[in-house]
Amino acid sequence: MLKNLNGSMEIAEQGIFMAGGRMIQKNDKFDHDCIATSGQTIRGDHAYVFYQIPVKHKKYPLIFLHGHNQSGMSTWGMTPDRRDGFQNIFLKQDFSVYLLDQPRRGEAGRSTESYSIIPEPDEQRMFNTYRLGVWPDYYENAQYDRREEILDQFFRRNTPNTAAFDLEIVSAGVAAAINKVGSSVLITHSQGGGVGWSSVMKTDCVKGIISYEPGSNFVFPMGEAPNPITGYNGIDVLCPQEVPKEDFLKLTKMPVVIYYGDNIPKDPCADPGMDHWRMRVIMANHFAKAVNSYGGDAQVVCLPDKGIFGNGHFPFQEKNNIEVANEMMQFLEEKNLAGEAILMRR
Amino acid sequence: MLKNLNGSMEIAEQGIFMAGGRMIQKNDKFDHDCIATSGQTIRGDHAYVFYQIPVKHKKYPLIFLHGHNQSGMSTWGMTPDRRDGFQNIFLKQDFSVYLLDQPRRGEAGRSTESYSIIPEPDEQRMFNTYRLGVWPDYYENAQYDRREEILDQFFRRNTPNTAAFDLEIVSAGVAAAINKVGSSVLITHSQGGGVGWSSVMKTDCVKGIISYEPGSNFVFPMGEAPNPITGYNGIDVLCPQEVPKEDFLKLTKMPVVIYYGDNIPKDPCADPGMDHWRMRVIMANHFAKAVNSYGGDAQVVCLPDKGIFGNGHFPFQEKNNIEVANEMMQFLEEKNLAGEAILMRR
Repeated sequence: MLKNLNGSMEIAEQGIFMAGGRMIQKNDKFDHDCIATSGQTIRGDHAYVFYQIPVKHKKYPLIFLHGHNQSGMSTWGMTPDRRDGFQNIFLKQDFSVYLLDQPRRGEAGRSTESYSIIPEPDEQRMFNTYRLGVWPDYYENAQYDRREEILDQFFRRNTPNTAAFDLEIVSAGVAAAINKVGSSVLITHSQGGGVGWSSVMKTDCVKGIISYEPGSNFVFPMGEAPNPITGYNGIDVLCPQEVPKEDFLKLTKMPVVIYYGDNIPKDPCADPGMDHWRMRVIMANHFAKAVNSYGGDAQVVCLPDKGIFGNGHFPFQEKNNIEVANEMMQFLEEKNLAGEAILMRR
Repeated sequence: MLKNLNGSMEIAEQGIFMAGGRMIQKNDKFDHDCIATSGQTIRGDHAYVFYQIPVKHKKYPLIFLHGHNQSGMSTWGMTPDRRDGFQNIFLKQDFSVYLLDQPRRGEAGRSTESYSIIPEPDEQRMFNTYRLGVWPDYYENAQYDRREEILDQFFRRNTPNTAAFDLEIVSAGVAAAINKVGSSVLITHSQGGGVGWSSVMKTDCVKGIISYEPGSNFVFPMGEAPNPITGYNGIDVLCPQEVPKEDFLKLTKMPVVIYYGDNIPKDPCADPGMDHWRMRVIMANHFAKAVNSYGGDAQVVCLPDKGIFGNGHFPFQEKNNIEVANEMMQFLEEKNLAGEAILMRR
């Protein structure tokens, strides 16, 4: 059970660091008096980490990775309606908390490659795809604060890529960050789910994975992937990703739980916002089955099956996020990932 | 004097919010089944705030604004060599601390306008302009940790604009953030200095301004600006900015201190990294004189005149940053901006 939810957080240490990334150098000689870029270097494509270590902290830190268009803080920080997000809730459970911005996002915005950002109006589609409801109506049981200013805060948390999304570069940066933290539990969201599987295959430090609503890049051993899944509209297709079997086997070495929220139909459905997630739940189940067939410990949990209703794509910041956090805490305890607090400072 | 520098931080509340910004809407009707942007909205160009309120906190929060290519956390958070930055140092002095990302930067990356990011190798010029030394040599007294991995961390903190820098949009977002915080002290750096003057003219909440190495957009009443200042190389020109007198007079209502570091020559100098700052110290003195001529309380402090040597462009994160913080703390105390802590929670 969660504790100290109305208490304060006693932080022994907090700070930031960068991990991974690339450096490019112009080959000619740097000219002090010339404004040209001659002979100079540029670094970029690293991951960014903001971390907080409570005075009393448990054995394994929690590393939180965001999804598409989001950042560590926008996803896991204070909720849009100004309650504690998972950052604060788990600090209050004595976990050290590490919030990542993946390469080319948020505070990790510096890239070595050029990019054009072309903002497009997309909020009504987001409303549907994030399963708040069918614009402009919320689902009857949606766990959202319906005030207009809260939706405004929610949409403003979007922040764009500053260079192209590249799974190899992004997962390399995330893996470098995980290696700097050491043994830890990785919590991912949405597109970050796929980044997570790829990152975990690049490090030996991850002791457990918790993935909220993973959206793409489900991995399978070469030659063992299921068929792509086609949406109700006949246009959307979700493809599995094949990886070398020895990489895939890394995912069988730790407990894995995948959570999905509510309002996801079991059968093909005309609402594209709902159907999108139906396809992903099917693929997630294929993934868990593949992991378990090689001796792993993976499970897919649809929150309504646990009696938790109304959640959309951001369950950890919706109105019942304490209930959702409690579910995650139980998983950590069951899998021995919430080991006793150490009473000395790092 | 500073206290509790090796202690922990007891945080009652921490979180994020967005302030200001714009919303654009496509005028046609949103089509649920079509992938086009029809009828949709996009919000952007807001400021982002991450704040922490200690259990015991002083009357006026401190609001920290970054400069060019930086973010709230990269400038004011943990130093590149992993010591406390001003965020932690002033939390430990019982101030509530608000770190801003200005519109179109870092966590406030979402804009309503398109933009091309074209990264250029620029680190050697940065080394010179930030007065670490003359590449590749550090100044003898430079307050920098000379390990290569620390310089790597420092350079990786750069993060680009995600849309064009627009002083009006940026200062509107910053002013909206200040209004949400309420009565407070504003601390700025570099390009943020100019954003700061513009923002303060848009709000009544700022009770004091501390500006580290302001770089541009020094303001003067219409018709009263000094001549532009030309650099040693005959190319660089620093222009004053004229504003309506009634706006300018707002800057006479609160104490203002401007700090510059070391290795800034008094006379024109062939080193462009040094000469750049000579010009700015002159303009800052014109600015302070203009503020004081209308009954204000502005001063320019060159840290070496206070016996603090070797600082470059980021004094608050250099090796002697405790000494630099102590100077700021004395200013806050002298100007009655470090009022007694209130013992109840907000």
